[in-house]
Amino acid sequence: MPDLPTHADVLAAAGRITAAVHRTPVITCRALDALTGARLHLKCENLQKVGAFKARGACNAVLSLSDEQARRGVATHSSGNHAAALAYAAGLRGIPVHVVMPRTSRAVKKAAVAGYGARIVECEPTQAAREATLAEVVRSTGATFIHPYNDPRVIAGQGTAALELLADAGPLDALLTPVGGGGLLSGTCLAAAGASPAAAVWGTEPAGADDAFRSLAQGRIVPSVDPRTVADGLLTSLGELTFAIIREHVRGIVTVSEDAIVAAMRLIWERTKLVVEPSSAVPLAALLEGKLDLGGQRVGIILSGGNVDLGELPWAVQTR
Amino acid sequence: MPDLPTHADVLAAAGRITAAVHRTPVITCRALDALTGARLHLKCENLQKVGAFKARGACNAVLSLSDEQARRGVATHSSGNHAAALAYAAGLRGIPVHVVMPRTSRAVKKAAVAGYGARIVECEPTQAAREATLAEVVRSTGATFIHPYNDPRVIAGQGTAALELLADAGPLDALLTPVGGGGLLSGTCLAAAGASPAAAVWGTEPAGADDAFRSLAQGRIVPSVDPRTVADGLLTSLGELTFAIIREHVRGIVTVSEDAIVAAMRLIWERTKLVVEPSSAVPLAALLEGKLDLGGQRVGIILSGGNVDLGELPWAVQTR
Repeated sequence: MPDLPTHADVLAAAGRITAAVHRTPVITCRALDALTGARLHLKCENLQKVGAFKARGACNAVLSLSDEQARRGVATHSSGNHAAALAYAAGLRGIPVHVVMPRTSRAVKKAAVAGYGARIVECEPTQAAREATLAEVVRSTGATFIHPYNDPRVIAGQGTAALELLADAGPLDALLTPVGGGGLLSGTCLAAAGASPAAAVWGTEPAGADDAFRSLAQGRIVPSVDPRTVADGLLTSLGELTFAIIREHVRGIVTVSEDAIVAAMRLIWERTKLVVEPSSAVPLAALLEGKLDLGGQRVGIILSGGNVDLGELPWAVQTR
Repeated sequence: MPDLPTHADVLAAAGRITAAVHRTPVITCRALDALTGARLHLKCENLQKVGAFKARGACNAVLSLSDEQARRGVATHSSGNHAAALAYAAGLRGIPVHVVMPRTSRAVKKAAVAGYGARIVECEPTQAAREATLAEVVRSTGATFIHPYNDPRVIAGQGTAALELLADAGPLDALLTPVGGGGLLSGTCLAAAGASPAAAVWGTEPAGADDAFRSLAQGRIVPSVDPRTVADGLLTSLGELTFAIIREHVRGIVTVSEDAIVAAMRLIWERTKLVVEPSSAVPLAALLEGKLDLGGQRVGIILSGGNVDLGELPWAVQTR
């Protein structure tokens, strides 16, 4: 296992990526404060480049490469925001980017990633095929593999969102993020450890994909098996790096129901007028469902992304 | 007809309402620039108090009242954003507010207006009943009637959005707003006349509710008869004040199809991650449909509001 990243790495990442990503706004919302009893500060990573915080980690990783490494390009496997983010980051540096995607991925997803300039390499929709295909891409091109979350550079980059949130909102009593692979949560832990050490960092997770909750309880990485949740950004399992950081720093992980996620997502759209993806709504869902009682506290929430297929929403919509 | 408001009235309104409303952000979006060929500056009035620019005019009107007038309260007829805005403004000043609404208005609309503290007075759903009921409310309470748009204080207040847009974006080549009753468009004309006199101000209107277009062509107010459009904020006819200002200042009014409005609205949601109501999408629709060619120009657009029933959207949505 490589050395764990530290608060200093988050600070370095912030300097490295400052011209590559947006400093997204932090908003407050009286209606949501009234519903939760907390004083919420929402970090709008849905307004980030590529529509998600993942731009931060990908940019930090790509901008950390030596010229020699960079020349040979980068590669990853992901059908989601990380693939788009890595393609965006590689485009900024003008280097090749290869993305392994299952051939069964939806055409719209492939087109989005290709639209950012990536070469799509299709594989069979199995874990083994994905790994073998990626290994072959790396072997034949010399590209550097950038894991979606289990990479010190990616973790440090994701931590810059919380760093900015703390700088803009001031010290907070609590910080909440969703948990999938744990890149955002572990980066947030590192950011808070140096910038707001009294802040309690909580992970929030769908009950239908509660591998991080179980991993923390059992003291070992419990893989995500057949996860089912509307929050399709949170299906992955923790990695050894993210788990080690989360285990050391996090106050706890709470799980929420699907109904609470959908209700929180709709509430954010209605009250803040921001389009967020389901994953972004998981922290608010934890407050609304009473899984965390942070009444009267100053609470930071990272709205992780805003990439939603507007033709497919998790609530019933009549066409008028 | 009362005196027409002027640029000086817009400046006075800006000072009067500064603590009562948000200075909303102005955003840019490369994807929308690429699609339109223009350099767009979007003024986010969907993020305004009560979710629409109408908070500006209502606050200016309420804060312009003498203490004696204010004590007797304010009244209006409106089932939309103006009613909520007037209730919000009256609440700030701690004065009574009476809103005449057809008894057939949807319960959710009545609840929203009541939620801002208004007394709802129901009437039969006819123009005559509405006017008679309002007259009776004014007679019995001494409240001041604040018209949704045909009022110099309201027009001046609405103009403050363009004033801020011009201050933040710098001089613009063109300014685009939707047109319903003309309060936003006429206020924008007054703001631009003093702050960016070279800017061409355009009104944009649904073809299915093209009374402003026809009024301008015929040189007299043509009432809106049986308007049909998804942009439900734009059903009303021009007033004598708004028409006089628009006629003098506006470069022109263009009309757009329903399909273009819906496509533009969806595009704004997708690309900017902002929830906007259909009326807000009409200016972008005019560019996308080729009704205005502003290629290469610096263009300001006022995103007028974000109040949408998320259970009813103008495109087909599957529930996942």
